[in-house]
Amino acid sequence: MTNIRDRVAIVGVGCSKFGEHYDRSAEDLVVDAAFEAYADAGIEPSRIQAAWVGTLESGLAGTALADYLKCFNIPITRVENYCASGMDAFRNACMAVAAGMYDCVLALGFEKLRDSGRRGLGTLANHQVIGHGTTAPSLFAMAANRYFKTYGVTKEALAKVAVKNHHNGTMSPKAHFQMEVTEEQVLGAPLICSPLGLFDCCPTTDGAAAAIVCRTDVAREIRRDPILVKGLGLAVTSGEPYLKPGFGYTGFPATRMAAQSAYEQAGITAKDVDLAEVHDCFTITEILNYEDLGFCGAGEGWRYVAEGRAAIDGGEVAVNPSGGLKSFGHPIGATGVRMIYEVCQQLWHKAGARQVKDAEIGLAHNLGGPGAVGCVTVLASA
Amino acid sequence: MTNIRDRVAIVGVGCSKFGEHYDRSAEDLVVDAAFEAYADAGIEPSRIQAAWVGTLESGLAGTALADYLKCFNIPITRVENYCASGMDAFRNACMAVAAGMYDCVLALGFEKLRDSGRRGLGTLANHQVIGHGTTAPSLFAMAANRYFKTYGVTKEALAKVAVKNHHNGTMSPKAHFQMEVTEEQVLGAPLICSPLGLFDCCPTTDGAAAAIVCRTDVAREIRRDPILVKGLGLAVTSGEPYLKPGFGYTGFPATRMAAQSAYEQAGITAKDVDLAEVHDCFTITEILNYEDLGFCGAGEGWRYVAEGRAAIDGGEVAVNPSGGLKSFGHPIGATGVRMIYEVCQQLWHKAGARQVKDAEIGLAHNLGGPGAVGCVTVLASA
Repeated sequence: MTNIRDRVAIVGVGCSKFGEHYDRSAEDLVVDAAFEAYADAGIEPSRIQAAWVGTLESGLAGTALADYLKCFNIPITRVENYCASGMDAFRNACMAVAAGMYDCVLALGFEKLRDSGRRGLGTLANHQVIGHGTTAPSLFAMAANRYFKTYGVTKEALAKVAVKNHHNGTMSPKAHFQMEVTEEQVLGAPLICSPLGLFDCCPTTDGAAAAIVCRTDVAREIRRDPILVKGLGLAVTSGEPYLKPGFGYTGFPATRMAAQSAYEQAGITAKDVDLAEVHDCFTITEILNYEDLGFCGAGEGWRYVAEGRAAIDGGEVAVNPSGGLKSFGHPIGATGVRMIYEVCQQLWHKAGARQVKDAEIGLAHNLGGPGAVGCVTVLASA
Repeated sequence: MTNIRDRVAIVGVGCSKFGEHYDRSAEDLVVDAAFEAYADAGIEPSRIQAAWVGTLESGLAGTALADYLKCFNIPITRVENYCASGMDAFRNACMAVAAGMYDCVLALGFEKLRDSGRRGLGTLANHQVIGHGTTAPSLFAMAANRYFKTYGVTKEALAKVAVKNHHNGTMSPKAHFQMEVTEEQVLGAPLICSPLGLFDCCPTTDGAAAAIVCRTDVAREIRRDPILVKGLGLAVTSGEPYLKPGFGYTGFPATRMAAQSAYEQAGITAKDVDLAEVHDCFTITEILNYEDLGFCGAGEGWRYVAEGRAAIDGGEVAVNPSGGLKSFGHPIGATGVRMIYEVCQQLWHKAGARQVKDAEIGLAHNLGGPGAVGCVTVLASA
């Protein structure tokens, strides 16, 4: 037994409105997410036996959140794994339940990036790569330029991702943005770091998300339709790939290894995935993710989106039906759990206008590190 | 099945020299600890399938350490839980193994407090309590004064702890200090925060420690005498107890709840413990720990140490045979794993001059938060 398949299940999820919450604290957002999850599961907070909290920089660990969560006197652990902090919190929560230590636990992710008095991603003082004088846009710009050079494509390829994800976001009430953009707007936007323009970058967002995880037999007592956890993959590649002479810039080995692990545990292949929430911190990243996750072959990602194969309607895998980081926003620690929230909405067929038809198997993917941490979760309806 | 008892075991441990390492980086210390653990277990780093790293402030997550640890492409998760960060990393590592996800994993803790260019404990900007203008010595000084008032004792009671732990430290080659102190020296030392003097406070130390955890059947293939994990307790009390009107200042509910959970899992009582590494961040804390862990009744802790009942020779429970935080040092994230290192040395009867006779059951205890996080691990020889 070296996998998690079907041993734990999700009985409730919650998500705050994502956006620029100048008038709300991190605790406010956490309460929104957690209490929506409690209500979704139909349980009292006293049912929660342990909690895991994913956050990168906000500095609020469990002891500061216990009162707000109504999680009194139970274990609360903070997990940090760069942009995969929230999904790794979920992973540790699942393993603790699978270990038989707890029947019902809470996984939570949050970040307050606006108006927090704290450091943003551009100034992570402790971060190796950024310590070398680079920023996230500059790193992913290198990937885009290498991809262009290798496969002979141009900025138009990236714009298709922005147009798709902003379109999906218009159907996603909790997303940071509900705003269509045209390819012309994307291509004409101010440059952030060539070739990436403003609409190639995810925004700076506040938000929180939560999921309640139970042993599967307990989950079936709580609701008739729990979401089964099929696979949990995490891979951390050595050091920062961007600093390695051998790094190819057209994909991330961490994503490939995490996906392989999650697919093996789930007993599926990429072909079985109906929808995926993937880490589109930049438009180029989503194109690389298609390839790394096996939705298409190397060098085919730009065509995958251009041909509508990532669309909600008529696509092969509906990618980022929520609007993705691009439109939903990317409060670092929140994102992984927010993806799990969206996958559950889809598998419960409660996603409204953005519903993926006949969705049965969903995937969530974080890339962090940057580029060194890949985290993949596979979920399925019961 | 809601406990961990006998399902996972430790096959190797390692610990760097603790001290003021102005000439060594955090990575240097981590390598010392991890490679000693690999050698102790007699395994190659390639055997490790996943890792957990406990650190509070150092900002080096898994991706930055993967190369140094020779942990290539596997999951590495950073865990943070105030002063219990290292022990909670160990706890999550144990649960992942008990879940059947991995056979052999690494738990690591470290902190670089000297010469790191990073913030010390007195200036944790994100910390609630310290945000209110107080520091760790001032908080524990309040506990000491309340204890004195409640039970009619004086500073002499605290000095016994310092004398004992500095004595034990002289037999502990990796401790920060190998230096006897007399009761007169302790009582005559400069005041830090009344009634706590210099020798009532643990030092500011750099260090790292590591433990390798396996499924018990795998552990028995690796070595004939693995150390069995009997119980893992963690409790986080709501908010910061020091800020609550109802806080009594003569003990920590988080410790009591964590200990109860760990004892229940282990199927033992406090009377069965042969030795304990407890969180003596200040001398008063160790006295409160005796009571909270059940080694003696409320108000009896000062007498417990004065009567030699916490001594290595002739005591009831040998408390902090390593020298404790007081003498061994307290690099925040390292301490919990360092305690597990010491308990293993004792249970393997390899502790040299500080060996506790006939040691079979050992306990490790962290207090963090401050005061809100209690973490207790019970270990036993196979």
